Amino acid sequence: MHKRSTGSSDETLAAGNGLLDRRRFLAATSAIAGAMGSAALPAPASAQELSVDPWMKVPGAPFVPYGQPSRFEENVVRTWTTVPGTTGTGASRTPHHLLNGMITPNGLHFERHHSGIPDINPDTHRLLIHGLVKRQLIFTLENLARYPMESRIAFIECGGNGQLLYQRAPAQVSVQQIQGQVSCAEWTGVRLAVLLQEAGVDPKAQWLLAEGADAAGMSRSFPLAKAMDDALVALFQNGERVRPANGYPMRLLLPGYEGNINVKWLRRIMLTEAPTMTKDETSKYTITLADGKSLQFVFPQEGKSVITHPSPGLVMKEPGLYEISGIAWSGYGKIAKVEISADGGRSWAQAALQEPVLSKAVTRFRLPWRWNGGPAVLQSRATDDTGYVQPTREQMIALRGNRTIYHSNAITTWSVSDKGEVKHAYA
Amino acid sequence: MHKRSTGSSDETLAAGNGLLDRRRFLAATSAIAGAMGSAALPAPASAQELSVDPWMKVPGAPFVPYGQPSRFEENVVRTWTTVPGTTGTGASRTPHHLLNGMITPNGLHFERHHSGIPDINPDTHRLLIHGLVKRQLIFTLENLARYPMESRIAFIECGGNGQLLYQRAPAQVSVQQIQGQVSCAEWTGVRLAVLLQEAGVDPKAQWLLAEGADAAGMSRSFPLAKAMDDALVALFQNGERVRPANGYPMRLLLPGYEGNINVKWLRRIMLTEAPTMTKDETSKYTITLADGKSLQFVFPQEGKSVITHPSPGLVMKEPGLYEISGIAWSGYGKIAKVEISADGGRSWAQAALQEPVLSKAVTRFRLPWRWNGGPAVLQSRATDDTGYVQPTREQMIALRGNRTIYHSNAITTWSVSDKGEVKHAYA
Repeated sequence: MHKRSTGSSDETLAAGNGLLDRRRFLAATSAIAGAMGSAALPAPASAQELSVDPWMKVPGAPFVPYGQPSRFEENVVRTWTTVPGTTGTGASRTPHHLLNGMITPNGLHFERHHSGIPDINPDTHRLLIHGLVKRQLIFTLENLARYPMESRIAFIECGGNGQLLYQRAPAQVSVQQIQGQVSCAEWTGVRLAVLLQEAGVDPKAQWLLAEGADAAGMSRSFPLAKAMDDALVALFQNGERVRPANGYPMRLLLPGYEGNINVKWLRRIMLTEAPTMTKDETSKYTITLADGKSLQFVFPQEGKSVITHPSPGLVMKEPGLYEISGIAWSGYGKIAKVEISADGGRSWAQAALQEPVLSKAVTRFRLPWRWNGGPAVLQSRATDDTGYVQPTREQMIALRGNRTIYHSNAITTWSVSDKGEVKHAYA
Repeated sequence: MHKRSTGSSDETLAAGNGLLDRRRFLAATSAIAGAMGSAALPAPASAQELSVDPWMKVPGAPFVPYGQPSRFEENVVRTWTTVPGTTGTGASRTPHHLLNGMITPNGLHFERHHSGIPDINPDTHRLLIHGLVKRQLIFTLENLARYPMESRIAFIECGGNGQLLYQRAPAQVSVQQIQGQVSCAEWTGVRLAVLLQEAGVDPKAQWLLAEGADAAGMSRSFPLAKAMDDALVALFQNGERVRPANGYPMRLLLPGYEGNINVKWLRRIMLTEAPTMTKDETSKYTITLADGKSLQFVFPQEGKSVITHPSPGLVMKEPGLYEISGIAWSGYGKIAKVEISADGGRSWAQAALQEPVLSKAVTRFRLPWRWNGGPAVLQSRATDDTGYVQPTREQMIALRGNRTIYHSNAITTWSVSDKGEVKHAYA
């Protein structure tokens, strides 16, 4: 057990168990000399101690056309699970405990494939708009390149992300395994509304079917109102062409809606009077409640947050000052507030939100914490600008039971032991 | 020569030679049926025309730990020039004509290396802060991980970007070659001010020296005021660890300042009374004027913009509606306005700016254009929120002469021939 540290006497506690004011570090003019308050952080040094490292003694590596991460970062990868007997059917997860900021780099964006990643030739790929329209239209990539583009930083979250929280006992795995099926990127493409207006929407049309060009022919229905509001046929992801794993050469982006309606490898949009009831929207992507009734077409991912630092796998070596940090998002709009508790929900302190705070995008939150070396129970709770408050796990189970795996947006809890070990817990 | 198209009669011209109002496409409710007005865009189709492509008939590719672009995008790469006899000394450029949005993906961020890319072991890398401080401090990556982080979407531009505009004749190369040494990413790290306050700044200190751990020991001086304002020791780039080519495991980020002061592979910060006058800030990164006098320590990259679509290498196959799009940025602050001319500067129309518009970040601008099939001369002109207006090439040469290669921020001109070919030109 560590010796407990009480911290500097001038620190303002914002909530119990060492949570400090969120403005503690934000003003560059605030006096923080000695604030870290620990002999290990950082070491006093003399200039002589800075050795000339081996990489300074030889010319460095040459240019390459397309860069990659450092070889020392080979543990920063997606992990995945597949359906038995397949290699490309399943889901991979973003290693949020090893990342920071709001953007997910394209190589680490989570994936959910229903039959692997198709190898699509963009020159022959087509997008058909048909059904209840005045003019059926078929678009090549070259056609679409002339249309007005729009960019939007948006999260995409699998409807099944966080499903481990429905289990009766807390799974002893990392934040990547528990909440890794959410990522955030800048998507650029053509507004679906522009293409629909060109096709001419029949007044009878109320729904759309979107179909992908994978071997599963993944297809989902969604309402016309969403198509006319903020839907995008996305061609670019963080500046470059959408990655194969994320729908190359084009995907549907329905900001805030559950992941798999953001149909990848988009090949067909059909306008209909009613939902098509495809094979991908029967018992799949449908919330079965405790009493056996099911909720179908629950589209927006509800307000949610999770602490990424610290989180399981990251060990706190000694008492002292730390930054608690994580990500928050809501399919309803902007994140308005994230609160953090270090005492299992008895008291809460408001975290700082990293600007820009954007609607239906990931928002990074941060709060300084002086860990006294004793046990702690860390939680984050998001509130969005519609007033929606992220529920506790107890509240979520009371609402939905635990027969479903979908739309798990409850508060995730990490326990910190007096040895500094971080584990998944239920509070 | 193409037959000239006059476009729909209901179109509002915003400036000469076919520039339309920037709100033309922005409201999803605006009637644009038939707006593309060209038989080639898109084709009427029947559902039967959508063939079942070969990639729908076989299971797709399996998961991989770290994803890559499609094999069909192998032309979307950086190009580079090196100093004769070296492989890693020179500069590489971002292919802006093939990208869209504001974020540059990490694999395509431009580079400028003075002796290649060092292969740094993060476990042994150190950052020393010394000189005019109360306490010399040495930081490991583990130390820094406990400090408060901050994220910022920021452009970095090489001081030599756009230098071809100083030449007497317009170089017949692409926008990548002319303006590819600017990129934009979300950087996350620790405010330098926080580290300096912990070290304790001696009142005599007015400047800092930043030194990299490459074989060139690249080092530059910058003022204390900038360090205390918005300087960041960046550890993450678009969510993941900074790439080796961009300074792994840490780089200095001085938002808006010329690229090479954003010292990569940062190993040492020394506080001084005056600039150190290193080998990298003599005739290099110094603006020599027509009369032989030189301007030293011109830090912010001035307000600037460039049209990326269309640009040389992209051919316009037929008259009709196009989107003119490009990027704008200013080291002084936010982009306030971008104007576009299609008649070589005789008339200007205001482009739409993609939100979020952030200080010292790239802003994507867009404007619809009905090309009538005749010759056109395209230009963009940025104005930032300090009122700074991007100069014409003539104005820039009048100010600076053409003995320098630095801080070339003049308007770049593309000529469009009646065959739809786009070329670099001087207006």
